[in-house]
Amino acid sequence: MRDSAITVQQSGAFIETFELRPTNVDGPLSGLTFAVKDLIDVAGHKSGCGNPTWRDTHPPARSHAVCVEQLLAAGATFRGKTVTDELAFSLVGENYFYGTPLNAAAPNRVPGGSSSGSASAVSCGLVDFAIGTDTGGSVRVPASNCGVWGYRPSHGLISVAGVMPFAPTFDTVGVLARSAEVLTRAANVLLGARLEEARDRDNKNERPAAILIARDAFEMAGPAARAEHEKAIAVLRSRLGYTVREASVSDLIGCPLSELYDTYRPVQWAEIESSLGSWIEEQKPQFGPATKKNFELVRALDRALVAAAIGKREKYYRAMRKALGPRDLLCIPTTPDPAPVKGSLGVDQRSGDYYRKALALTSIAGIGRLPQVSMPLSSVAVEEGHAPVGLSLVGRFGEDEFLLGLVQEIDREADDLAA
Amino acid sequence: MRDSAITVQQSGAFIETFELRPTNVDGPLSGLTFAVKDLIDVAGHKSGCGNPTWRDTHPPARSHAVCVEQLLAAGATFRGKTVTDELAFSLVGENYFYGTPLNAAAPNRVPGGSSSGSASAVSCGLVDFAIGTDTGGSVRVPASNCGVWGYRPSHGLISVAGVMPFAPTFDTVGVLARSAEVLTRAANVLLGARLEEARDRDNKNERPAAILIARDAFEMAGPAARAEHEKAIAVLRSRLGYTVREASVSDLIGCPLSELYDTYRPVQWAEIESSLGSWIEEQKPQFGPATKKNFELVRALDRALVAAAIGKREKYYRAMRKALGPRDLLCIPTTPDPAPVKGSLGVDQRSGDYYRKALALTSIAGIGRLPQVSMPLSSVAVEEGHAPVGLSLVGRFGEDEFLLGLVQEIDREADDLAA
Repeated sequence: MRDSAITVQQSGAFIETFELRPTNVDGPLSGLTFAVKDLIDVAGHKSGCGNPTWRDTHPPARSHAVCVEQLLAAGATFRGKTVTDELAFSLVGENYFYGTPLNAAAPNRVPGGSSSGSASAVSCGLVDFAIGTDTGGSVRVPASNCGVWGYRPSHGLISVAGVMPFAPTFDTVGVLARSAEVLTRAANVLLGARLEEARDRDNKNERPAAILIARDAFEMAGPAARAEHEKAIAVLRSRLGYTVREASVSDLIGCPLSELYDTYRPVQWAEIESSLGSWIEEQKPQFGPATKKNFELVRALDRALVAAAIGKREKYYRAMRKALGPRDLLCIPTTPDPAPVKGSLGVDQRSGDYYRKALALTSIAGIGRLPQVSMPLSSVAVEEGHAPVGLSLVGRFGEDEFLLGLVQEIDREADDLAA
Repeated sequence: MRDSAITVQQSGAFIETFELRPTNVDGPLSGLTFAVKDLIDVAGHKSGCGNPTWRDTHPPARSHAVCVEQLLAAGATFRGKTVTDELAFSLVGENYFYGTPLNAAAPNRVPGGSSSGSASAVSCGLVDFAIGTDTGGSVRVPASNCGVWGYRPSHGLISVAGVMPFAPTFDTVGVLARSAEVLTRAANVLLGARLEEARDRDNKNERPAAILIARDAFEMAGPAARAEHEKAIAVLRSRLGYTVREASVSDLIGCPLSELYDTYRPVQWAEIESSLGSWIEEQKPQFGPATKKNFELVRALDRALVAAAIGKREKYYRAMRKALGPRDLLCIPTTPDPAPVKGSLGVDQRSGDYYRKALALTSIAGIGRLPQVSMPLSSVAVEEGHAPVGLSLVGRFGEDEFLLGLVQEIDREADDLAA
């Protein structure tokens, strides 16, 4: 591990640590270290998926997941497998069996989930970047909570082979890093993008057509977070000279933002039940209390409603396709507020306000199959000091490389401002 | 089952037959019957995936796959689970354990796989439509062989939850039917498309910008098939008045067509190994001889090459995105020739010419993540009489409904010509 004030032990981020050398020493990720969430296969090791019964009832992986193979071939060094919420089914990051990885940016607060250990390992400086999965926000929410960069790709563009299937219509493999530059280098490898091409594009310096500030999305955020986000947006507008316009998601797609959550939820739950229900029925796994509650909700879903929910999902998907033109970006808060204080959410998390608001925001990209980057540009005063909250750009389907190029420019500008 | 000269028994298409009534009696699929490939979950039944060890080592499904739920909610009646090639890993349709489903259009010939039983059940008139999966051609090839309509969707637009993961970057759920009208009705339900909207579009009668006849793709086909396809294309040009242009895939994406196969194969194999390798290692399953050989090839793949293959795949994917404009369509033969004669391909199928040519054609949509419909418009003289061979249209990503509307128009015109 690299020099860091926080040790692996203190971070609680890892399920196990071991090193795998890159398969090519000379690649775009040479010299960088990474970790992967423990529902992504690493050859010879079990993917425990955050649940002891899963670990006991599955064999070790024979081969690496395809994404791990890509990173090793690009020169990166593997350092370990990170804690995940049980079966990826939480945005909180408090695993009943494996603990709560440290949020280095706000130690009293949860790291967020389900890629909790990946965000923690990055925020603690223990690896250069980490791989997570993002179905309903599991990379973006921990990135926001821990003050790091987080990328969810356009759905289907990064291989999920060797990754536990959860809700396949939404499942993605994403990246967390402390700089937009490292985030982009790792993401480009996973996207199979050629570095020369990406560099050409950088040099051409493609600019966004318009950055649409989604008013209704910012209304989900608390007043302190909104005020901080406005400062960051002012930089985009004045310092970078981007075209910034007011908009609203509800005008763009013809439904209130809350409706996105009500659409996302039954589709996601139906897919989770189809992916994991048979295993649960057969194994009667031991679950932590919040996870048990979550799977009871999934099980109780009236499946006769699934088809109608999918109809709505695809309607909003098509509306978003039409609404975003080439190089248009939607700007939203990643999460409504900084991370909740540890232990504050209780067992019945899904009935509370936190999930409803957070998922209304994350389901924009989920339903739209769109790429999103959460940027650690804002920090809010809280009782114990300050805590980060992410500002996000959502891109058009397939315009991942453009989005990543842009956030690098923003990161450089933010560094200049801080300097 | 409906009136049919061929019985379920004679067809050999089914693993098991049982009826599930629709969950809504009044829907767009009311009155239609369907079957699903036996790697798609139906509650209370095992998904055997064409392999006896898989059947023995997996529990029954607790819930229907999401796609089954959608069809039942749309008014369709389920009639049974159909034979598949072992673990979906074949384009042939000769299952060592469960036999070769009857190709009603060419009884001496294989039905094609891996959705062999679904194509057979449709070609034998035992159900109105059937659901298959298509990773490398497993809906399109049997549709071509059996003389029925076959649809592979844009990747990621139809839910694969509750379906055996195989090579997730390419995996899709598709439809087979005897008419483009039934094909479209079932496909629209799975796409979550609203019937009113689809009807509006039909009335607007959107026309293709251009149909690009891919010269190099037709060079893969045998002379008799090419001659028949030319007649069908003449109808598109003269009777329907579409703009038809010569083109070549290699010009459009900057690589010879054979290179697509060489790119598709390592990526697919890497994903198969990541999806199924651990289970194979743990269970040491009993395989038929051709399947055993296939999985040996997968196992022998040098995984250090995977990252480079993905780089190429994504390069060609991006090139196809640019090459096809709105409502452009690519016209190619679905398969090079009519179905091979039963038992003619031997154990070492993948080293032969058949796979190389067939996969070069099917990997266009696979690599491009594009929707494709195989149309049963052509029939070629063979030793024993005539055998069908499919002509395909490949659409732009997400333009599935447009493509389906168009093939309905073509089907009506073909009927008029035949009348």
